Amino acid sequence: MERINVGLVGFGTVGSSFYSLIEKHKNRLKEQLGVEICIAKIGVRDPGKKREYIPEGVLVQGYEEILKDDTVPIVVELMGGVEKPLDLISRALKAGKHVITANKALLSQYGDKLFKLARENGAELKFEASVGGGIPVIKVIQESLKGNEIQSVTGILNGTTNYILTRMTDARLSFKQALEEAKEKGFAEEDPTLDIEGIDAAQKISLLASISFRKWVNYRDILCEGITKVTGKDIEFAGISGFVFKLIATAKMTEKKAIVTVFPALLNRNHPLASVREEYNGVLIQSDFLGTSLYLGRGAGGSATASSVASDLGDIIERIRMKALPDPVGMPPVEKLDLFPQDDLQYKYFLHFVTDNKPGIWAAVTGLLASNGINIESVHQKWEDPVKLSDLYVLVDKTRELFVRKAVKEIVDSPGIHKSSCFFRILEG
Amino acid sequence: MERINVGLVGFGTVGSSFYSLIEKHKNRLKEQLGVEICIAKIGVRDPGKKREYIPEGVLVQGYEEILKDDTVPIVVELMGGVEKPLDLISRALKAGKHVITANKALLSQYGDKLFKLARENGAELKFEASVGGGIPVIKVIQESLKGNEIQSVTGILNGTTNYILTRMTDARLSFKQALEEAKEKGFAEEDPTLDIEGIDAAQKISLLASISFRKWVNYRDILCEGITKVTGKDIEFAGISGFVFKLIATAKMTEKKAIVTVFPALLNRNHPLASVREEYNGVLIQSDFLGTSLYLGRGAGGSATASSVASDLGDIIERIRMKALPDPVGMPPVEKLDLFPQDDLQYKYFLHFVTDNKPGIWAAVTGLLASNGINIESVHQKWEDPVKLSDLYVLVDKTRELFVRKAVKEIVDSPGIHKSSCFFRILEG
Repeated sequence: MERINVGLVGFGTVGSSFYSLIEKHKNRLKEQLGVEICIAKIGVRDPGKKREYIPEGVLVQGYEEILKDDTVPIVVELMGGVEKPLDLISRALKAGKHVITANKALLSQYGDKLFKLARENGAELKFEASVGGGIPVIKVIQESLKGNEIQSVTGILNGTTNYILTRMTDARLSFKQALEEAKEKGFAEEDPTLDIEGIDAAQKISLLASISFRKWVNYRDILCEGITKVTGKDIEFAGISGFVFKLIATAKMTEKKAIVTVFPALLNRNHPLASVREEYNGVLIQSDFLGTSLYLGRGAGGSATASSVASDLGDIIERIRMKALPDPVGMPPVEKLDLFPQDDLQYKYFLHFVTDNKPGIWAAVTGLLASNGINIESVHQKWEDPVKLSDLYVLVDKTRELFVRKAVKEIVDSPGIHKSSCFFRILEG
Repeated sequence: MERINVGLVGFGTVGSSFYSLIEKHKNRLKEQLGVEICIAKIGVRDPGKKREYIPEGVLVQGYEEILKDDTVPIVVELMGGVEKPLDLISRALKAGKHVITANKALLSQYGDKLFKLARENGAELKFEASVGGGIPVIKVIQESLKGNEIQSVTGILNGTTNYILTRMTDARLSFKQALEEAKEKGFAEEDPTLDIEGIDAAQKISLLASISFRKWVNYRDILCEGITKVTGKDIEFAGISGFVFKLIATAKMTEKKAIVTVFPALLNRNHPLASVREEYNGVLIQSDFLGTSLYLGRGAGGSATASSVASDLGDIIERIRMKALPDPVGMPPVEKLDLFPQDDLQYKYFLHFVTDNKPGIWAAVTGLLASNGINIESVHQKWEDPVKLSDLYVLVDKTRELFVRKAVKEIVDSPGIHKSSCFFRILEG
């Protein structure tokens, strides 16, 4: 074999970066892989759009031609969305084609079915680019940590929200200002919902949980909160107690059940993930033999993500070139992961009450915390203006999520305490 | 295939941890790899020594029996030293056995020959555990970054010296006290020469340079300085200017020649490697598509290193199970890496002159720096006791190594300036 054809579907930021990578490193890859990579077909919505640097005949409409082409054994799906990629990847795998995808939304919903399909058809389904952008966290978990029991994976997995929180902290921007800036810099999409609501991070941590614990979890089943309720004041008051805000995704195995969560958390300033800034991502893995290990890199952007796609492509080509049999044991089984009940989760909490500035507020708050068995660790109050509202921050001892939800609801129902009150969790360790 | 036999040679800290890992995770590994791993023979110096948990007949004297045994396709070399492992590994490869080793001393001298031998005999030679303990840096460079041109690799690669420097900085211990503490905690060997003189780090960075730039470099050819001349005073004065001391290993590609070095460097307190503390290792990689990525973990200790050996074993077993052909292109070629001349290296420097406390010293130092074209950035002086010696610290602009060596030599030859004067380099970026 001298040349291997690749069918690329999708030519946005990541797709075009991947194309550039293959062009730029053609010789390097040939030397290392022993074959020349040829992007034989690129499926796009409008092949008539001018892209002069692409040879004639390569651009095609949609992906039907790529599926039909028997000279293309590898399909790279970088189109985004869920329904179309599901159709493309299912049919590619059934045709025995190897597939590479960066699509966490797809895999965190249909991963179990797709991996089963891959197994049945002797095809590879690789997805390094779906989590952590360019950070090789999938390979680390699936290959490097094979001799370890993974106890927990804790990460900053969304570059958009990390950029926003960094700018809110460092430049004291409001959430809205930071989001606008992120859009201008290309770190946030026009519709940022999936990022700021924590859904993107939830999809990624669900995938990491699935491969770490070798049972599948659907991202819709996990505790997921975004960063839209984090205010500049919250960041300021958390800072007084030595904490920084980060959108933290966690997958942790307890005796039999797993804790898989995404929420804006308060981290001690010395926590290894506290120094992951701007659009960078970071993944902290705790495992029995290696212990603590940390992986940092650019979690978004075309070129970092293209680097991961190329890594998967290298692995598949090596396997093809070595005429290796398909790998029926390496993929996670289709069993469901059993999740720890959300009510029983336990954290320290950082409570924020927005209150009228009048007597009796403290008594109501402290009384209702006490009647729910919640112990206060420290308190900060700020009057912006004596006749207006005041902000009461209460840091409480470790307690069950159920009790905190109940106490906060009771407190918010009290006179003089406003609905915009909320609570955040503190990440320990 | 249901069972695969492994021959282990060496049963020290790493060897016994590796044995424990395989025992503890027998079922997990079987599920993931599809075969049961059996450590069929363990070669040790004295098989009569009591190790009751090892089944009878497994312990053998030396490695001859393992080499002869046709039912053992994989040899794990964890004995240490150079001559015997060279003999064992050469003969194992010639017999077509796959080999896993943690031996950086061996590979950084004989890597080119051993990989050639592996290639010729269709065998694998894997070495994840040789650099960075449990950090999967070899796999990251060889597989995950395949689509990248690696521009530089900068690391803290020696846990012993990092522990010593951390303790000298945090607890203001002397070098000698910190070394004693490291020995007590098992982070330093009885004879710590290889670690404190930078040789262990030099072997590791030479290996990383070889696989990153795909040409071989022998560690004896690189600039290598240890940490024995770093004093508490140096650390204190570097701290005044915002720097911390770390033993830094660097492999950097310039236009055609490579810079490969090990020396105690001053790092800006915000540098990503500045927060790698105690016995931890860290590797910072700069590459064209991924950009900056950072990998941290335990760089020493039996269990972290065993984790890397198990990762290599998993890869080899997968390849055997899939009946894959040997991989003749994946290994680095045997060409020599062309090194940048040491005299032409350029750094900012931190000069430390130990001087008599009398007039004319400043004039001599500043005059000789000026006559060598070296520009002063800042100066600190400390008199511990007016009648005794004084310490003069001079931070100078970027300049050629040749000029600094010449200037320091001339200054030290001046009256009233002592031989214990020395210089350190500042790591930028």
